[in-house]
Parts: sequence; structure tokens; C-alpha cells
Amino acid sequence: MKILVQKFGGTSVANLECMKKVREKVLAGLARGNKMVVVLSARSGETNRLLALADEWSNTPDKAECDVLVSTGEQVSIALFTMLLKDAGVRARSLLGWQIPMTTDDDYGRARITDIDSAKLRAALEEYDVLVVAGFQGCTEDGRITTLGRGGSDTSAVALAAALGSVECEIYTDVDGVYTTDPNICSTARKMDRVAYEEMLEMASMGAKVLHIRSVEFAKKYKVPVRVRSTFTDDPGTLVTQEDSSMEALLVSGIAYDKDQARVTLHEVPDVPGIAAAVFGPLSEKGVLVDMIVQNTSLDGHTDITFTVSRKDLNQTLAIMDEVARKIGASEVVHDVNVAKVSAIGVGMRNHSGVAARAFAALTQEGINILMISTSEIKITILIQEKYVELAVRILHDTFGLDWDIN
Amino acid sequence: MKILVQKFGGTSVANLECMKKVREKVLAGLARGNKMVVVLSARSGETNRLLALADEWSNTPDKAECDVLVSTGEQVSIALFTMLLKDAGVRARSLLGWQIPMTTDDDYGRARITDIDSAKLRAALEEYDVLVVAGFQGCTEDGRITTLGRGGSDTSAVALAAALGSVECEIYTDVDGVYTTDPNICSTARKMDRVAYEEMLEMASMGAKVLHIRSVEFAKKYKVPVRVRSTFTDDPGTLVTQEDSSMEALLVSGIAYDKDQARVTLHEVPDVPGIAAAVFGPLSEKGVLVDMIVQNTSLDGHTDITFTVSRKDLNQTLAIMDEVARKIGASEVVHDVNVAKVSAIGVGMRNHSGVAARAFAALTQEGINILMISTSEIKITILIQEKYVELAVRILHDTFGLDWDIN
Repeated sequence: MKILVQKFGGTSVANLECMKKVREKVLAGLARGNKMVVVLSARSGETNRLLALADEWSNTPDKAECDVLVSTGEQVSIALFTMLLKDAGVRARSLLGWQIPMTTDDDYGRARITDIDSAKLRAALEEYDVLVVAGFQGCTEDGRITTLGRGGSDTSAVALAAALGSVECEIYTDVDGVYTTDPNICSTARKMDRVAYEEMLEMASMGAKVLHIRSVEFAKKYKVPVRVRSTFTDDPGTLVTQEDSSMEALLVSGIAYDKDQARVTLHEVPDVPGIAAAVFGPLSEKGVLVDMIVQNTSLDGHTDITFTVSRKDLNQTLAIMDEVARKIGASEVVHDVNVAKVSAIGVGMRNHSGVAARAFAALTQEGINILMISTSEIKITILIQEKYVELAVRILHDTFGLDWDIN
Repeated sequence: MKILVQKFGGTSVANLECMKKVREKVLAGLARGNKMVVVLSARSGETNRLLALADEWSNTPDKAECDVLVSTGEQVSIALFTMLLKDAGVRARSLLGWQIPMTTDDDYGRARITDIDSAKLRAALEEYDVLVVAGFQGCTEDGRITTLGRGGSDTSAVALAAALGSVECEIYTDVDGVYTTDPNICSTARKMDRVAYEEMLEMASMGAKVLHIRSVEFAKKYKVPVRVRSTFTDDPGTLVTQEDSSMEALLVSGIAYDKDQARVTLHEVPDVPGIAAAVFGPLSEKGVLVDMIVQNTSLDGHTDITFTVSRKDLNQTLAIMDEVARKIGASEVVHDVNVAKVSAIGVGMRNHSGVAARAFAALTQEGINILMISTSEIKITILIQEKYVELAVRILHDTFGLDWDIN
């Protein structure tokens, strides 16, 4: 049995006209001899409408009941789409999370998939040519509805492909693939034919909206080839897959950026053991995610600690840091919201030195001051003033030759 | 364990304000020492909104998928209401049809309940004080979602009460009980304290909107006492129950009417065996429901056959009758849409004669011409010209002393 998994997001199922385009994609998949598993999101705007109801009803909506509420969004999508398929004479049926069943833990609102009954799925694929599956939802072992968190439909699709044996998974969206950088700020941005899981992970964590980060982790873990493509064109899109030699030939595969950064510095912190825990422990307790961290080498037994957080968390962070500074005897807390980060990402970095130096040199040459640096095995991240972001992206894109197509 | 089942309709859960009134009713039930099963309908307008979507998507929406679609209406209601209960510190959870499970046959859109897992319900009532159940929906043995048809939430509630052992079932609605007749046309109409199942069935079949007819059949079969009352008052409402001696003391309990009637007559039908089948068979095949039927005694081997149908079915009926008349050799087909029927209903008729004669005399005295008559054990139905309906209702209400409260 040849199986293809396709996933369509909220904008692809927004209305009847869009859904008819989706049907064309599914019919084309059938015509190529596939049995199909089609995963749908809620129609665009629907999840937000339902969450707004929950917020109107309660200041602290019960999480389990919230999942019962919002899971109706996908239920509406799959019922309507299956009607369309049956109108076209396709042997199809809808499947809710509990009907598969797609078993998850009971962390309502951001549950993790623990098991998928693939034997039952395969049996259903004997009886039907298309299974239309509600994305984003699952159910606990004792039969309560859960949801996987925002972007969870991507994860549903990849998990189904993994359960069915690493069959290819096509994620349809309103862009035609993964780009070397944001085409809105860099006219030479180029759609990639292939990108490695690791690179996609780094891009997703930088806020690239194409794929949900958990779905990429899932795809990487179970080696599911994921193709990102557009509902509205026939472009083959971008294949997210295991790295291969052609990818390693590139130093850098993509440039990402994130403007949602605020920088906080504690000056003259006494450099004693446990100081990092004293600073970052209280933030973690309040659920504030810290992104980049730099600690200067000690001078006269004192040091400066600088880190960045999401701008929405800045006020809370400053309140916590004022208290921390008093406790540990730091001289002052300063902050800056006019900052942003730019990253160069590429599995090729593993085998090449000098990438960071080339990036720094290129930026400095154009007069861009580097505020913080953080590097990982396949990523270099640089914090700069926000006003330079677009310029920095174009410079790095050019420096690493991303406008050339060498695939 | 003392259990109370309460059911609230669409207008009772339409918005946050209404749902807070519902919560008061539930909290009052808890305060009286009950464990509660609360059955909710979809918020008013929601089911129609979803059905309109189905009609937009398909000319002949797949019935099974239609049930997947419309069942989301109740799912939204129970999730929101359970949030409200949990905000008030109540140990509550929502239950969908498949979670109970409320097993039905697979007649999608109008499924019949075949089994309810009452042991599982009772176990859940040990753990929770309130179970908030989605009305109107069930699931087949192999786990597909079904709905019970319009008004099905009443049936859900009564069936749950029956499964739990004939516990009392309160049906909350926007009227405060069952009236002797329509208060809009008869100012002396009186709310009844009690009404027999059989009487309620006859009233429901006459179009009284208070209770869904299937729920009354269910209540009668399993002897579930059903109390009809208002969400918006503290009135004790009307108890629908087994007939008792106080009811039998009344000749007539209520007067119902139905304006949705059209009369069709076939003149000079040859009076030979099988003629009724020749007339009514083709109507039945096309799904036309025939209401009253009168056949005059034969004269010269010919007879007249008169019957009534719903006005929406009139055109189809006339087309069929033209053909039937040609086939069987009737002289002509005539019809009249300016007719309506009025019924007097009461279990007391079983033990008293002369009720029909009193009704005819009262109407004739006021100059109302009787067009057709049909009687059953506990009902007398009279077809009259539509313009006399309100007058006839008031005359019969007065004739049988329904403005007196003898309970």
C-alpha cells in the first residue's frame, strides 16, 4: 500500500473555494496511486474565536474543557471537507483524534503524542481511499480530548507519517517553500529545494513560521521526509530531510532574524559561585524564557551579566531583576528594547572554520555594531541594533552566496 | 446516591448571562443533596449555522459527516458551561456522546438510542458532582458520531434518567410549563400541574413545542417522571407522569390546534377492494404523511375519500392524486388550504361517553361548521375552516372547564 500524508493549514480550508483547491491536491494524490491521509487544521480564525469565547466565559478557563472547546474547530473542517470528497465520489471518512486513536499525555493545551494505532489506520485505509484526520487533537488513554498546542496540526501530520512507516508528508501552506531568508526584506532570497532537519529546527526556533518546531523534531526523530509546499501553486516546494553531502558543501543555508528581543544587563555582579542560578532561577520560576546569555570575564571579583528575553516579558523581567540585584549586590539593571538578532544557519559549519569571522567582518565593514554573540554547532547568532536588521540580513545573505542556486 | 437530571435548551445556554442562570439552577440542585447530570443543547442558532454550512458545501451533504459537523454545537456548550461550574469550585466534567458512551443505531441524523453505559455513568458520579452531557448526540457501536434529530436533547435527558433508574428529569425551557391550550389565543389558558404521558404525546403530535415527541415516548416507556419548567423563574412547572385518578376526573386536559393542514378530496371513487391502498400507497412512497382520513359510505358503488396533509406537501400530493384519479377512475380531485384542526385531549375520555357530542354541540352552536372528524381513545379531532380556529379553541376550553384548577 502506497500512502501519502498531506496536511493543510487554516488558510487552505478557510472557505469553500479554498477547500475545492485542497480537493484538487487530494484527487491528484489519488490519481498517482496513493492511499491518502489528509490532516486539516481549523478554518482560519476559528481557533481564535473559540479561545475568545473561553476567555469571555472564565478568567482561568479549565484547560481540559478548553481542549474540548477548541477541538471543535478541526472537527468542523474535516466534516465539511469529507462532504466535498464524497460529492466527488471518493471513498472517504473523517477521523477525530479519539477515533484513530491518537493517544497523548494529559498535558491539556500542549499534549504530547505517546502512541498512534497504526494497525487500525491501515485497516481503515483498506476500506477507504482517503482518511480525513482532525489535526491538533488527540485523546488521553482514558478517553479525554487533548490538543497539541499551536501549530500542532503539523505535528499530527508528521506523527501519522511516522506511524505509517516514514511515508512522505506534504505540509501545504500559503507559501511555496522554505526560503534562504525572508523575501520581504531580501530580494535575492531563494527557495531551497532541500533543507536539513537541524537547519529547519534552528530556523523554526528563530520564528520562521513555515513549520512548527515540534513537527520538525518529530520528523527528525522518525526520519519522515517532509515537503513544504503551497496549496495554491504546483511548485514542488522544499524537502526537509536528513542532511547529505550537497548540503554540507554549503557553509550557510539560511539567514533568520528575530525582532522580538529585549536586552537586560546587570552591572557589577559579585562573581561568586551560584550567581547564574540566583539570576536565572527566579525568571524560570515565572515562566520567562531567556534567549541569549553573555557573562563577561571577571574583573576585580565583579562581572556583568547580559541576557535577552521576549519583549512581552520585559516588564516582568525588570521587576524580578530589581529584586535580584538587591539580593546579590549588583550595582544596577539597565535594558534596551531597540535590539534584534540575526542568525546564519548551516550544517556546513560543522566542517568549516572561519564562518563566524566572515560574518563579523562583513557586518563591521558596513558599520553595524555587534552587541552580543552566541554560537552553536550549526548556527551563529548576533545581536545588533534593531534598525540594522534588514541591512544585516542582506549583507549576510550576500556574504554567504545564498542567491546562487548550487543544488 | 440521589441523582437529578436537568436539561437546558438552546435559549437557556445562548450566552454567558443565560448560562449563569443555568448555573444557579444546577447549584440549587447540588445544595439539595443531589448528584447531577446536566444535559445541554447547542447554543441557539448554532445548529442552524452549522447546517447552513453543510448546505453551502454540498447539495446532498453526507449524513454521517453532517452529524460530525452539527455535534460540535453541543460540544461547545458543555465545554463552556463546565468552565463556569469549575470557576464556582464544582467538581464537574463534560461528557460527549461517545465518552458516556450513549450507543445508537447508525441512522445518521435521526439515530435511536440502543444502550447507555449506566455503570460507567455511576462511576463518574462517584468522582464528580456534576456531569455535563452533550445532548442530541450519540455514537454507533463502532465509534462513529450520530445525532438524534431535532429536539433530540430532550430524548438524551430522558434516556439518561431512565438508564440511571427512573430518576426525575427536569426539562428547562423558556416557558414555565404545559398549558391547557395556547395562552396566546386563549386568555384563560392555565398551566397544568400534572399531565399524563399519553396526553403529552397527543399534544406533542399536534405541534405543541414544549417536549419532543420521542422524549415523551421514552419517558412513558421507562416511567421517567419529567418536569417541564422555566430556566428564568422558580415556578415548579408541569410534571409529565403516569395517569392517576385526579387526571381521570377531568374529561379533557387540554386543547391543541394545528393550522398546517390542507384538505384533499377525491370524488366518485369506485368502491372496490384495494382502493385505499391505491390512493395512499403512492403518497407513502414519496414520504408524504397523511393526517386525517375520512371515507364516506358507498352510494351506487361510488364513494368520496377525503384526507389532510401538511401544506408544504400539498403540491406534490395534488400531482400524485391527479395520476391516481385517472388510474382508479375518480371523477375529480378538489382541495382546500383554508382549513385547520382542533383537538380535545384527555385520558378521562376513556371512562366517559358523550365528550365528542358536547364538543360538536358547542362548536355548532357558535356557527362553526365541522368539516371532518377523527377520534381516538383519548382525543377528538375536528377539522374546521381556518378562520374559526382561535374561536373554536376558546369555546372548547370553556366547554370543558379548563380554566378551573381542580388539581
